[in-house]
Amino acid sequence: MLSSEGRATPPTATPGRRGGRARRRAGDTGPTAAGAVRRRIPACELLDAEALAALEEQADWILTEIGIEFRGDAEARRLFAAAGCRVENERVRFQRGQAAEICATAPAEFTLHARDPRHSVILGGDHLVLMPGYGSPFVTDLDRGRRYAAIEDFRNFVKLAWMSPWLQHSGGTVCEPTDIPVNKRHLDMVHAHLTLSAKPFMGGVTAPERARDSIEMARIVFGAGFVAENAVMQGNINVNSPLVFDETMSGALRVYAEAGQCVCVSPAIFGGAMGPVTPAAIAAQTHAEAMAGIALAQLVRPGCPVVYGSFHNTMSLRSGALTFGTPEANLVTLALGQLGRRLGVPVRSGGGQITAANAADGQAMADSTSAMWATILSGANQVWHAAGWLEGGLTMGYEKFVMDLDCCGAMLKLVAGMAVTPETLTRESYREAGPGENFLSTRHTTEHFATANFLPGIAEAGPYETWAEGGRQGAEERANARWKAMLAAYAPPAIDPAIEGELGAFIARRKAAMPDEWY
Amino acid sequence: MLSSEGRATPPTATPGRRGGRARRRAGDTGPTAAGAVRRRIPACELLDAEALAALEEQADWILTEIGIEFRGDAEARRLFAAAGCRVENERVRFQRGQAAEICATAPAEFTLHARDPRHSVILGGDHLVLMPGYGSPFVTDLDRGRRYAAIEDFRNFVKLAWMSPWLQHSGGTVCEPTDIPVNKRHLDMVHAHLTLSAKPFMGGVTAPERARDSIEMARIVFGAGFVAENAVMQGNINVNSPLVFDETMSGALRVYAEAGQCVCVSPAIFGGAMGPVTPAAIAAQTHAEAMAGIALAQLVRPGCPVVYGSFHNTMSLRSGALTFGTPEANLVTLALGQLGRRLGVPVRSGGGQITAANAADGQAMADSTSAMWATILSGANQVWHAAGWLEGGLTMGYEKFVMDLDCCGAMLKLVAGMAVTPETLTRESYREAGPGENFLSTRHTTEHFATANFLPGIAEAGPYETWAEGGRQGAEERANARWKAMLAAYAPPAIDPAIEGELGAFIARRKAAMPDEWY
Repeated sequence: MLSSEGRATPPTATPGRRGGRARRRAGDTGPTAAGAVRRRIPACELLDAEALAALEEQADWILTEIGIEFRGDAEARRLFAAAGCRVENERVRFQRGQAAEICATAPAEFTLHARDPRHSVILGGDHLVLMPGYGSPFVTDLDRGRRYAAIEDFRNFVKLAWMSPWLQHSGGTVCEPTDIPVNKRHLDMVHAHLTLSAKPFMGGVTAPERARDSIEMARIVFGAGFVAENAVMQGNINVNSPLVFDETMSGALRVYAEAGQCVCVSPAIFGGAMGPVTPAAIAAQTHAEAMAGIALAQLVRPGCPVVYGSFHNTMSLRSGALTFGTPEANLVTLALGQLGRRLGVPVRSGGGQITAANAADGQAMADSTSAMWATILSGANQVWHAAGWLEGGLTMGYEKFVMDLDCCGAMLKLVAGMAVTPETLTRESYREAGPGENFLSTRHTTEHFATANFLPGIAEAGPYETWAEGGRQGAEERANARWKAMLAAYAPPAIDPAIEGELGAFIARRKAAMPDEWY
Repeated sequence: MLSSEGRATPPTATPGRRGGRARRRAGDTGPTAAGAVRRRIPACELLDAEALAALEEQADWILTEIGIEFRGDAEARRLFAAAGCRVENERVRFQRGQAAEICATAPAEFTLHARDPRHSVILGGDHLVLMPGYGSPFVTDLDRGRRYAAIEDFRNFVKLAWMSPWLQHSGGTVCEPTDIPVNKRHLDMVHAHLTLSAKPFMGGVTAPERARDSIEMARIVFGAGFVAENAVMQGNINVNSPLVFDETMSGALRVYAEAGQCVCVSPAIFGGAMGPVTPAAIAAQTHAEAMAGIALAQLVRPGCPVVYGSFHNTMSLRSGALTFGTPEANLVTLALGQLGRRLGVPVRSGGGQITAANAADGQAMADSTSAMWATILSGANQVWHAAGWLEGGLTMGYEKFVMDLDCCGAMLKLVAGMAVTPETLTRESYREAGPGENFLSTRHTTEHFATANFLPGIAEAGPYETWAEGGRQGAEERANARWKAMLAAYAPPAIDPAIEGELGAFIARRKAAMPDEWY
């Protein structure tokens, strides 16, 4: 008499060897380890097998007939040519079915190790990993308004993500620390992830040497031997859609792949501009571009852990502005979950809690919630932009961040499913409280009341009268108090002072070796 | 090469005889007839067969061992006793499996006829019918604030629902016209539905004679002969959960069933109070209560069209306040879609765009959107509270109403699915625009751009800078302009003046026959 299960979140799985240097000492403090979360409700199978085969056929046609350009990266082209692809100038054309074949060496699931092993996660299968927004140059809050993001903001969001039991991953460029020179930002960002948090993270990708620095810092913390054999970080490789990898991205991809670290390939298609306007075409093109990047990672190092990513949005027919959480984008999200599973690799959804809204208002949350439902039901394994996103990613909002955290917690409760057991059906309650009677004082309600329902972190609005007397605080205003309370309560996870010193020395050395660059 | 289809909305199906009196003349004006919408994406099958069987077994156990009370309605109890149920005092206990057997005469789908046949809908199967909120004593808007609802508000919401292509049904008590005596409200409400709209509607239920008045008014408009043979209205029968039908509700149920009009049975379970706190128990109890009501309708008139309804929410563990759009409530919503389909009757979801929020803020839209996704994916056929709900149903919000309309339109676009065809895959676009090139000026984008994406009715926020200069209008403020523009553009559907006169005379006669009652 069991259902689609609904068991409680299992303990964090940490297969493989434990070890590393800081890892043994980390994790003495910190929030409840959410660890890997598993989806115990079925994914939405939007498309039937015939439609999925048509999308795969289209992707294969794109890769065979049109091809992908790897601009400025002769090594990438050499690898493809050696594998039997047709290379003309910068264009790489695959043979029929070849891209999927090369991708076949990618693992279906793998462990992404965290500094605190209790926060290690599995990517793939029915595992679910949520992380903050990525890449915003601005931040906003109700007190100070919208402004360029600084390293202080970056650190604040890393702290908030560390504290939330609903995010399993610290993210990457959670916002751009624009007060740090462009060529040195990656050092401070990776430092924040490695010291203010002990959850998995993403390293720098904006130049191959920045990718190398990121991996070097991970070696200091995890130990070089551990990093050589385990994935301890991810690098986000954006495709320069349509159908182009620039040399920065393919170069960084090769650095992560050579080091055996996780390569996330993220096509980025604005429907109608970087590809056709129709959802089917966007899904197929994403599939083609993602396969091309994953194939390159496998040619560099067969078996390299990868994530099949995507990013796509729609345009307003009224203004041409980018729009998010729309039904057309959500359909693409659902289809890509299916295509990624068929390819047999972990899937990062192009959804998350995304919106074009400028403030954490009703539009922001309607867009975000709709996109998040599509994302979760797509069966995606990793969800970027699960917290904080505003303005199409231009801005990370402090209030939006904690509003999204509540939505993440609710979604994680949903994916745990419904337990159908004698205890949850509780026949004895109906013997205690018959027709017309109140169940509040039954044994079952008393026992389960405190844990039965998901409890949001943001204060309730309360009844209308008290709410009106209290100044009619909207959700955004109530969220303002929440993130401040969280930051005030922040405590860093433990780290070996020797390791921390070594990290600091590495950063100082690297910063001293380069003049500041601001572009 | 077709997908889960994604064909455009089919033309309104209006099987059965056309006719009636006003119906031949109605519909010369009015918005685009949305007619019946079909769900072309699969429903979410949350629970496996074993779990569903366990819920059904639990419901049957409740009906057999605990029973349902039909208080003050000797005729209902007589019908059950005659069918072989065990009746003791007011308690009715079914035999094992008997409730589902009695329900088997209810039609799996049927046409709910509208005054304008182009707006008739099918309930059941993969058809989807959205309607406004139901039952709020208050209304609110940004200009006048929160206040008791008046008949003017009622008429406004009927007008807005008539104008929206995303609502297929005019609703019932869209708000309580508190400026009209309690015993006469049904006359003015039904009059508004029948004259200001030409979509399907719900009649009065707050006393058996008010149900009879409502049906009498429908006979004036549709013709008595047509009403005798066709469903032209619905009556909402709330269960006095747990496990009680009071005589008002079972009496009204019998009036609708005797007239062959659609009976909607709506258990209303606040988890932990009107039933246990666990989602599985709430789902099973809802199933038991809904079957009991449907069974009564079938005993009154076998074949009577019914809708399997539900209403359920959760409580805050912090304050005990009612909460909506929560993961636990959404799980119940998903399970009930499955249970209703297995029973073989049209399902009205207990979801919709519902929230406990006092204003149309981020919380309101996060709750509403989440509940709506669960509702739509549950495979429900009829969605109440699809627009306007605030404060747990205490208030209908004008701004919330039009914000919800945009969400309804987006969901209807989503349920149309993704078309995977040579035209949507558009290979020639990739010959026009190769790697790194822009697709905006391709033939395909140019041809499809204007119709590719769903277009919300509320104005966009626009880029940050112009938005900030324009006063930082949130979604709620922009929605304020939208409902006013809609009401300003309202035009009533045509109606035969003779019919309208007859309706007016009926109402005047009935009002004159009763002293005002205000309780």
